[in-house]
Amino acid sequence: MLNIGIIGAGRIGKVHAQSIINYVHTAKVTAIADPFITDETAAWAKTMGIENISKDHLDIINDKSIDIVLICSSTDTHSAISLEAIAAGKHVFCEKPIDHDIGRINAVLDALKKAPPSLKYMVGFNRRFDHNFRAVRKAVEDGKIGKVELVKITSRDPEPPSAEYAARSGGIFLDMTIHDFDMVRYLSGEEVVEVYTQPAVLVDPAIGEAGDFDSAVITMKLASGALAVIDNSRRCAYGYDQRAEVFGSAGAAASANDANSTVQVSTDAGVTGEKPLFFFLERYMQAFATEVMEFIEAVVNDTTVPVDAQAGLEAVLIGIAATKSAKEGRPVKIAEIA
Amino acid sequence: MLNIGIIGAGRIGKVHAQSIINYVHTAKVTAIADPFITDETAAWAKTMGIENISKDHLDIINDKSIDIVLICSSTDTHSAISLEAIAAGKHVFCEKPIDHDIGRINAVLDALKKAPPSLKYMVGFNRRFDHNFRAVRKAVEDGKIGKVELVKITSRDPEPPSAEYAARSGGIFLDMTIHDFDMVRYLSGEEVVEVYTQPAVLVDPAIGEAGDFDSAVITMKLASGALAVIDNSRRCAYGYDQRAEVFGSAGAAASANDANSTVQVSTDAGVTGEKPLFFFLERYMQAFATEVMEFIEAVVNDTTVPVDAQAGLEAVLIGIAATKSAKEGRPVKIAEIA
Amino acid sequence: MLNIGIIGAGRIGKVHAQSIINYVHTAKVTAIADPFITDETAAWAKTMGIENISKDHLDIINDKSIDIVLICSSTDTHSAISLEAIAAGKHVFCEKPIDHDIGRINAVLDALKKAPPSLKYMVGFNRRFDHNFRAVRKAVEDGKIGKVELVKITSRDPEPPSAEYAARSGGIFLDMTIHDFDMVRYLSGEEVVEVYTQPAVLVDPAIGEAGDFDSAVITMKLASGALAVIDNSRRCAYGYDQRAEVFGSAGAAASANDANSTVQVSTDAGVTGEKPLFFFLERYMQAFATEVMEFIEAVVNDTTVPVDAQAGLEAVLIGIAATKSAKEGRPVKIAEIA
Amino acid sequence: MLNIGIIGAGRIGKVHAQSIINYVHTAKVTAIADPFITDETAAWAKTMGIENISKDHLDIINDKSIDIVLICSSTDTHSAISLEAIAAGKHVFCEKPIDHDIGRINAVLDALKKAPPSLKYMVGFNRRFDHNFRAVRKAVEDGKIGKVELVKITSRDPEPPSAEYAARSGGIFLDMTIHDFDMVRYLSGEEVVEVYTQPAVLVDPAIGEAGDFDSAVITMKLASGALAVIDNSRRCAYGYDQRAEVFGSAGAAASANDANSTVQVSTDAGVTGEKPLFFFLERYMQAFATEVMEFIEAVVNDTTVPVDAQAGLEAVLIGIAATKSAKEGRPVKIAEIA
Repeated sequence: MLNIGIIGAGRIGKVHAQSIINYVHTAKVTAIADPFITDETAAWAKTMGIENISKDHLDIINDKSIDIVLICSSTDTHSAISLEAIAAGKHVFCEKPIDHDIGRINAVLDALKKAPPSLKYMVGFNRRFDHNFRAVRKAVEDGKIGKVELVKITSRDPEPPSAEYAARSGGIFLDMTIHDFDMVRYLSGEEVVEVYTQPAVLVDPAIGEAGDFDSAVITMKLASGALAVIDNSRRCAYGYDQRAEVFGSAGAAASANDANSTVQVSTDAGVTGEKPLFFFLERYMQAFATEVMEFIEAVVNDTTVPVDAQAGLEAVLIGIAATKSAKEGRPVKIAEIA
Repeated sequence: MLNIGIIGAGRIGKVHAQSIINYVHTAKVTAIADPFITDETAAWAKTMGIENISKDHLDIINDKSIDIVLICSSTDTHSAISLEAIAAGKHVFCEKPIDHDIGRINAVLDALKKAPPSLKYMVGFNRRFDHNFRAVRKAVEDGKIGKVELVKITSRDPEPPSAEYAARSGGIFLDMTIHDFDMVRYLSGEEVVEVYTQPAVLVDPAIGEAGDFDSAVITMKLASGALAVIDNSRRCAYGYDQRAEVFGSAGAAASANDANSTVQVSTDAGVTGEKPLFFFLERYMQAFATEVMEFIEAVVNDTTVPVDAQAGLEAVLIGIAATKSAKEGRPVKIAEIA
Repeated sequence: MLNIGIIGAGRIGKVHAQSIINYVHTAKVTAIADPFITDETAAWAKTMGIENISKDHLDIINDKSIDIVLICSSTDTHSAISLEAIAAGKHVFCEKPIDHDIGRINAVLDALKKAPPSLKYMVGFNRRFDHNFRAVRKAVEDGKIGKVELVKITSRDPEPPSAEYAARSGGIFLDMTIHDFDMVRYLSGEEVVEVYTQPAVLVDPAIGEAGDFDSAVITMKLASGALAVIDNSRRCAYGYDQRAEVFGSAGAAASANDANSTVQVSTDAGVTGEKPLFFFLERYMQAFATEVMEFIEAVVNDTTVPVDAQAGLEAVLIGIAATKSAKEGRPVKIAEIA
Repeated sequence: MLNIGIIGAGRIGKVHAQSIINYVHTAKVTAIADPFITDETAAWAKTMGIENISKDHLDIINDKSIDIVLICSSTDTHSAISLEAIAAGKHVFCEKPIDHDIGRINAVLDALKKAPPSLKYMVGFNRRFDHNFRAVRKAVEDGKIGKVELVKITSRDPEPPSAEYAARSGGIFLDMTIHDFDMVRYLSGEEVVEVYTQPAVLVDPAIGEAGDFDSAVITMKLASGALAVIDNSRRCAYGYDQRAEVFGSAGAAASANDANSTVQVSTDAGVTGEKPLFFFLERYMQAFATEVMEFIEAVVNDTTVPVDAQAGLEAVLIGIAATKSAKEGRPVKIAEIA
């Protein structure tokens, strides 16, 4: 029985705690730490059977009984806590991104090179564990669509963040599109070599005034010469729109959104079905659980983690290149960044 | 170049004339006859290049230059005109049904037995020529679904007829369901041996007062032991609902409705597509054309017609059995009728 | 914190235990009893935190600390254990059906009349908790489709049971269709007044030799005059086919099957999506959880249970009428049975 | 009754002749001219009732009885014949593109400015007349999706042209994508101001050696700041893939492909529907007819043509900018070209 400490008691930390309690029988959440933990969250943790509640994440890092650390704190703490946890010999699951700074990500990669090979480090790209995207990837891997020629991703959030959030988010490409960059790599099985960003402020002028964008089309060239394209919006009237299509020499595999039911109501006004599930907690709830389960399995069985630190680095490199492309109005090679 | 005379200048007579002009290059409509022909229809016929316009259908029967007669007049005239046309050596396309009276249908069958084998007689079950139902049938014939175990048909009209129409229609089972009975035979490739009708008056009480029904579920047993079920309504808020499903030992083939476009509009209110095409002229326009084209091809090439007079008889037999079942509240064998 | 005892440690007993552990925080499974409990199941129960494991269900009935009994044992024990549990003052969740014998069901209903009104008794018609069927029901309740005129249910199992199972199952109508009968009542909000069964043996002759059927179309008349139709097969090549459609004066609401993903693969061979989920454990896993959660909520809040004992009786009455109709080849009124 | 002369007796010339014969009752094809006309085509023309057959298109231009000229000859002749026809006072329907050279298109625009205002000139962007794209446009115009933010077009041909064809086609952007550029303008109701092309040779290296591309993703900025993206491939294993989606502040409207039937076959291997219609003649047959019908209506009623010469110019400007972008690897403003 492995012991798990969760650093960060926000929404995603709670989701992971709940998943482990529901589905994992080889590990147990024994500690949770958050500098801003509320009484309510502390009470919730107690009812979930989490014994140690703290405001100091070092209580988890320094707890010898803890085998695994889940880093669910704010993005700017990810790389520092990663280094502490690796130094303490913990297995680490780190929410995306490791950092927005390449140097700090490389520091984590360096620490991992020096750590024992059995120490597991995984980055939380939850969408790789979604049943739909996995089925697209499986079709690609099984050769159903031949050689990959184009990856297309539609990724639209139901509601825009505040301009304040946008200002300190690292920008849409590192905050939102980073998931889609990882998805391009996952679905194609290839590296991105060049990116061109056509950004826009169409949803909220305040986001533009804060120096960010809320809409974009991003074109990429992959190592094999194949193409990829992502379209993003920070606001989607009909909910969370998360689709992928891979087109190849023998055909295409495409996923649609999930909805609450398959029901269609036919009336004089048309044939109406349900909207996509509202947002990431609804759409990816099972993916979040699968993600943590597969991480813990990799720890228990000493096997490769599904999303390693290098994948975390690659997505950030593409995000930085995309940001640069948006600013300079030209295609940017990933090699310019790395 | 074959010459065609059309008897009956109503909606369906015009549809056939138009189809022949558009698509058939081996035959020409040279005459049209209708006792109630309007000036407007006569003018239309002129612009379509139809030279001979008459109030007397015998002008067509007696015209030696005419090779083919299309009987598109009212149902009560179908069998008598069929006999006249067969006696005159014309090839005959007769709108469904041949008659509501078994004796009169048998008279037509007898006349055909005595006619030269090259004389073609076809009954207008237009749905057999619909692209969707044909694709279902093809899946069955190709063995895709294995041995047929169940045929399911949904058949709902957009708007109910008047109670007056219902009163003289022969009843819903001979007027409306007869198409579905033919479809059960077509899709399964089997004869119906028993029928049970659960009828209801749910749409318009006046139809009930006129002695007819406006809704029904009809269950059938086929010769192989397979089952069939039809659900009918005379009124459907979202348009003309015409679907079929055949279930077998290896799977199922099912058709959906056609619509004006494939477009789906996603908004806060849901994901909405178009309603089915409104009624039979919209849904079966191409089927009407294919029907006439295949009939004329059979005449030109002296091959078997796609829907023979026997098929016309069988559908009526099932319709009469269904009517009897509705009245007596018990399953009725087709053998009781024939 | 309520204590729960589960009687019957088979597949469905385990599913309920798991659901309670995962989702219910107001109750705890403290005991499980099964005369044939295996060492493996006992070990599983231990890891799930179930403390009391027994071969005698009376250990649960007689345990004063237990508030709720889940009856998941074989069908022939349901009514007797129900009576014991009610007598012991337990809240009862009983898997369907209560019994195949009307007299024994009535005995349970009588016992409930004499029990304190706060004692809850629920029957496990799990499909009422399925997201798709609930969305159909909601459309009906919200008046989206107007007045109900027809309920259509397709219900096909992926694989037939053995002839031995069929022989002692009470027959397809009480074993399999009973769920669909309940669904007709649930979706329409109406009572069934008459049923006609067109049964067949199309899948496995041995099932016919055992005196049962493996295929059927069942037509029903509802109290308002509306119609219903169910088609059943014990074998479906493409998986568990579970669909419902309600047609009314203003339109229709129809559900489709669930699948593992929304992915469609387009190739030279066509556009292919996934099959329906395999069987009831896959399709209804979430429904089983919701069912138990809502039952326990009803106990905790002393509110009405979603499926009462009367609903359990009604479905059996229809099942017996359907069986009689199949034997006698005629429509049977429910009033003949009750 | 208007008289029509068709210049160019290839595939598309014949399609237009057929449409006019089938659907247009206010005009008649009286002449056809093609320098390479075959005996077979001449015979076909005779059976279609086309009286004058010639190798010299000037026979049509100089024929005073001809009111309308359809220019269906090779692309390099479009602008010259347009000038001749305008000078002769004919109404002109010109297949796309008017020319690949901006100067020559402007010469046509100049000639039109000097021609009488009643002289009609239309460019054959047939896809604007497709039922699916029209339904998308209608949703946009009706305000169903709010303010337009993104236009997405998928456009893939079933089979690549020969490298020889590619070499003299003007390049993929002027030969194939030009339709999609027009569609972006049509669906958005906006002008394109900037284009970035990410081209690739993924289908046939010989096309690359001929100096052309066979795959591309093209990103655009529209006048309002909205975005557009097109993905193209010259080869699509599952047929002609022609889809559009417009995303806006209140939702999205998206079209799917058309297929031969709606039938789905469910077996152990999955749920399989039909592929999209094979190529443009299948997919756009009705659109070609509607296009010509609406052009002739505009002539008859002296109303605005649905696609004017300016639209023909704009699409070519975008195509030239896209070609420049592909060569120079940078975004190109349309203003750079014009």
